Amino acid sequence: MPSYRAPVRDARFVIHDVLKIADHAGLPGFAGATADIVDAVLEEAGKFAAEVLAPLNASGDREGCTRHADGSVTTPQGFREALAAFRESGWGTLSAPEAFGGQGMPHVIGFAVEEFMSSANMAFAMYPGLTNGAVGALLARGSEELQQRYLPKMVANEWLGTMNLTEPQCGTDLGLVRTRAEPRADGSYAITGTKIFISAGEHDLAANIIHLVLARTPDAPEGTRGISLFVVPKVLVNADGSLGARNALSCGAIERKMGIHANATCVMNYDGATGWLVGEENKGLAAMFIMMNAARLGVGIQGLAQAEAAYQNGAAYALERRQGRALGGPAEPGAPADPLVVHPDVRRMLMDARAFTEGMRALALWCGLLVDLSEQAASAEERQRADDLVGLLTPVIKGYGTDMGYATATAMQQVWGGHGYIVENGMEQFVRDARIAMIYEGANGVQGMDLVGRKLARDGGRAIQAFFAVVDDACRPDPADDAALAAIATRVGKANGELKAATLWFMQNALARPDNAGAGAYAYMHLMGIVALGLMWLRMARAATGPGVATADRAFLDAKLVTARYFADRFTPDAGALRRKIEAGADSTMALPAQAFIAG
Amino acid sequence: MPSYRAPVRDARFVIHDVLKIADHAGLPGFAGATADIVDAVLEEAGKFAAEVLAPLNASGDREGCTRHADGSVTTPQGFREALAAFRESGWGTLSAPEAFGGQGMPHVIGFAVEEFMSSANMAFAMYPGLTNGAVGALLARGSEELQQRYLPKMVANEWLGTMNLTEPQCGTDLGLVRTRAEPRADGSYAITGTKIFISAGEHDLAANIIHLVLARTPDAPEGTRGISLFVVPKVLVNADGSLGARNALSCGAIERKMGIHANATCVMNYDGATGWLVGEENKGLAAMFIMMNAARLGVGIQGLAQAEAAYQNGAAYALERRQGRALGGPAEPGAPADPLVVHPDVRRMLMDARAFTEGMRALALWCGLLVDLSEQAASAEERQRADDLVGLLTPVIKGYGTDMGYATATAMQQVWGGHGYIVENGMEQFVRDARIAMIYEGANGVQGMDLVGRKLARDGGRAIQAFFAVVDDACRPDPADDAALAAIATRVGKANGELKAATLWFMQNALARPDNAGAGAYAYMHLMGIVALGLMWLRMARAATGPGVATADRAFLDAKLVTARYFADRFTPDAGALRRKIEAGADSTMALPAQAFIAG
Repeated sequence: MPSYRAPVRDARFVIHDVLKIADHAGLPGFAGATADIVDAVLEEAGKFAAEVLAPLNASGDREGCTRHADGSVTTPQGFREALAAFRESGWGTLSAPEAFGGQGMPHVIGFAVEEFMSSANMAFAMYPGLTNGAVGALLARGSEELQQRYLPKMVANEWLGTMNLTEPQCGTDLGLVRTRAEPRADGSYAITGTKIFISAGEHDLAANIIHLVLARTPDAPEGTRGISLFVVPKVLVNADGSLGARNALSCGAIERKMGIHANATCVMNYDGATGWLVGEENKGLAAMFIMMNAARLGVGIQGLAQAEAAYQNGAAYALERRQGRALGGPAEPGAPADPLVVHPDVRRMLMDARAFTEGMRALALWCGLLVDLSEQAASAEERQRADDLVGLLTPVIKGYGTDMGYATATAMQQVWGGHGYIVENGMEQFVRDARIAMIYEGANGVQGMDLVGRKLARDGGRAIQAFFAVVDDACRPDPADDAALAAIATRVGKANGELKAATLWFMQNALARPDNAGAGAYAYMHLMGIVALGLMWLRMARAATGPGVATADRAFLDAKLVTARYFADRFTPDAGALRRKIEAGADSTMALPAQAFIAG
Repeated sequence: MPSYRAPVRDARFVIHDVLKIADHAGLPGFAGATADIVDAVLEEAGKFAAEVLAPLNASGDREGCTRHADGSVTTPQGFREALAAFRESGWGTLSAPEAFGGQGMPHVIGFAVEEFMSSANMAFAMYPGLTNGAVGALLARGSEELQQRYLPKMVANEWLGTMNLTEPQCGTDLGLVRTRAEPRADGSYAITGTKIFISAGEHDLAANIIHLVLARTPDAPEGTRGISLFVVPKVLVNADGSLGARNALSCGAIERKMGIHANATCVMNYDGATGWLVGEENKGLAAMFIMMNAARLGVGIQGLAQAEAAYQNGAAYALERRQGRALGGPAEPGAPADPLVVHPDVRRMLMDARAFTEGMRALALWCGLLVDLSEQAASAEERQRADDLVGLLTPVIKGYGTDMGYATATAMQQVWGGHGYIVENGMEQFVRDARIAMIYEGANGVQGMDLVGRKLARDGGRAIQAFFAVVDDACRPDPADDAALAAIATRVGKANGELKAATLWFMQNALARPDNAGAGAYAYMHLMGIVALGLMWLRMARAATGPGVATADRAFLDAKLVTARYFADRFTPDAGALRRKIEAGADSTMALPAQAFIAG
């Protein structure tokens, strides 16, 4: 059985010593986030994840969810109690506004807690996680009335939420949505249609489930400009806030999936269910994207979380399992064999995992801080800059974060050799669970296109220029750097140079032929991932050598420096290769006639 | 439900037009392999794989194997009948010597057939596949008596075979084997011990199962120099060849695994079972490695096979599923959306898959031909050269082939979006099944070490020098090349230059510090994989432009040229990055104290 311990110390190091959130103490949202409180929250959240959620991870995978003849769904044993404890501890309300009963903590702290919960039990964490997204959409676009009716219970996790986008004929291409919304005299709508792949669509964890549903009104224009967003509760809510009749919606089936078995993935049937419009008619896609962007960051964090959980168990096995001898001669001559960790190739896998997880954690938390600053920074300019960077980093965190999360989980399974393939050892579950994160909330190819096709060009390239400025600034020779730091800065700067060259190449070649952007988008997303992690490693390495580190001991800081060097040695060389793939353009990618792919 | 069609045309193109096996018609083993016979074998094998084995792939995964209270094991429905049909059609005997009832076909043909069977149903194909390995070991090291007793039935697939290496405390490190072999007066041995992860260890597919078991005799030296190989039948064989009493061995449990559910992975208990020594005492590891090397090539082919099967279904979905519009404007304005294949990023995944599978098929078949030449070439020099290249390429085919097989299966699952995560669509099974190939028969990290630690240095680097000569020769400017071919040759030549530089770096840096070899071995294996596939793409591209192509039409040949260009564009750039990772050496990989990996 795998074990899990929350990386509280690393999160504290990033939050206090790298991101220095104390510098933002003057902003309204940070007033309550003193170092003591932050540390206590992280400590307690880590304990909760390790002690309450992690023990249910393997059993939840084994049991899965069960749909009964009446359409009700039972979650695995222990999930109801765990959600009750989660609710009572207030983990779901952490970053929610105090006005609706939340704790108003900064998102940067919320992101750290999200990682812990998702490492311990990804399928469980999705239930409250999706609720956060629904809360965000209602906060941004819901009427005062809808907010008052739903948010307090949702923030309290008494009711949970979902996103209903996908239909059988419509996944990535939301313009194909067919679910109908007929206006009724009382201002509500009758929602009719079938949604598929609805995570947490039906379950036994909450008294009500609040579905946010994309549908079309009768006269809506075709395509994405004719989609509206509706709130459709499982149980109708009376004027006094009490629960009324069951709404006309039901779970028609649950899917048998590769992983996240403990999360009920539902086919949802809406048969004239009563819903209420969120925001304006035909502006549903924009409203949904508020939720979607938050969800994408959450999914990127899932990639990190599975990598971290897998890493811990890969590392533990590497120290415990004995096979073979160190290449330079026995490390422990008295034992029948040396522990796996003496082997350079096992180290390679473990160091890859550290370089990714610690770098990714820093990047995700930086992005959490930027979300906070986008809402609360003192000047409009600072808020805009933070918002630009969040928009740019979101597809990178989602796409690069989940690709690498899966690769890391796979590598940690590899450390276990044949034992990694055996179900009861739990390593293969990390791989199966991590796999979905590359697909949902916009498949990773879509993230690449979002990055290259939308985010790069938006506002005359303001976001990418801001990013380049941050990286350039960090890579500029610093007289305080020793030789090792200077070498890391040089390598990250070189990777950033490849990213700039690739960006320029798109500017010169994608306008005349958009496929040139499409064919290189995925490589670009990975290239930016490397630069972004390089930036964070440089910051962490500087923080680890600098004076006044409050959160960690020398061994921890030395390990940071080693891993930063490893990142520079082993991750940055891919930047040049990715640039060359981008600059190869679309010719050979697009040259085959479509039929050639199935000609046998 | 996925479908499968054997890539017969591609195999024919490689065998006849790229490898030109007709040039070897004068060698004894090739006499029966006329073009007509080869084509008929490929056609029929492809039909058998598609029509008999593929329909049992998903059901076999769902049902798995069942162990009963008496230790017997039932394979999934249909497997008994399929194996009977396989046996009758003689697929298992294809490359076995005629002296023992085989058909004596060249290995190059056997490899092609192995791919088809493994694509259609990997878990099934392992049953006869492992038998081939056991046959090889008995052919090479078994006494006349053992050969006569076991080989005819094994070659006929009336009896099946296994390899018993792993024990609970002993995986990669075979020096730790504890199973004991006590000599008896009659020349047999009493075998006692527990073996784990024994594929096809017990089942209902054959009247007898012939286990090849590593064990130690009482006075054997410690470590790998004290291991002997024994043949231990499930049912003892009487002097007249009839079956006698059950031997004292049994299946104690079958494992619950991530994939290959239809292959029974057994814990095997030997309780004084009767076995006979194969080859010399204490020389068991060398004997086992004969089997192991064949098995490693077979596992590399499994990687290719799962990639091919996944590719076919990814491509079919990309042409059928409609989402979004081509970036340059609607490709099919009359339809509600364009097929996925218009999207450059979907093409990227499909082209990656083609570039890998077709290149890998050519490499595997070349290696098959080299196996034939190592046995049958006219001169000792040619036989030695072929054997050197087989030894060098084996870890590359196993390690690179299975890493890429898994990555390709994962990417093809990605083409299916959310539907790829759903069990009944079958894409996730390709991923789960492909995963084991990276682990068994020597985990891929071990393949890297075999390549760098053993194969490079052996005989003064004779094998790698032979490989460089082959690639240099192919990359030399050829006046017959057009600009596209010349560009491909240049890129492959450049990748080969990176491989040479990395080889030189090892020569200069690994002697003083062996960890420098260990830390770069995995990257080197991938680097050689790229060069080896590049070599095959160059050969295929030249064959496709040359005169007298007998096997294929213009559309097929044009597709080859496009994919060769794609390989040059998108695979070769990684060569430089891999070299730089190798040249980073072991410093940052090995610097952390072991405890730092679990310090939290």
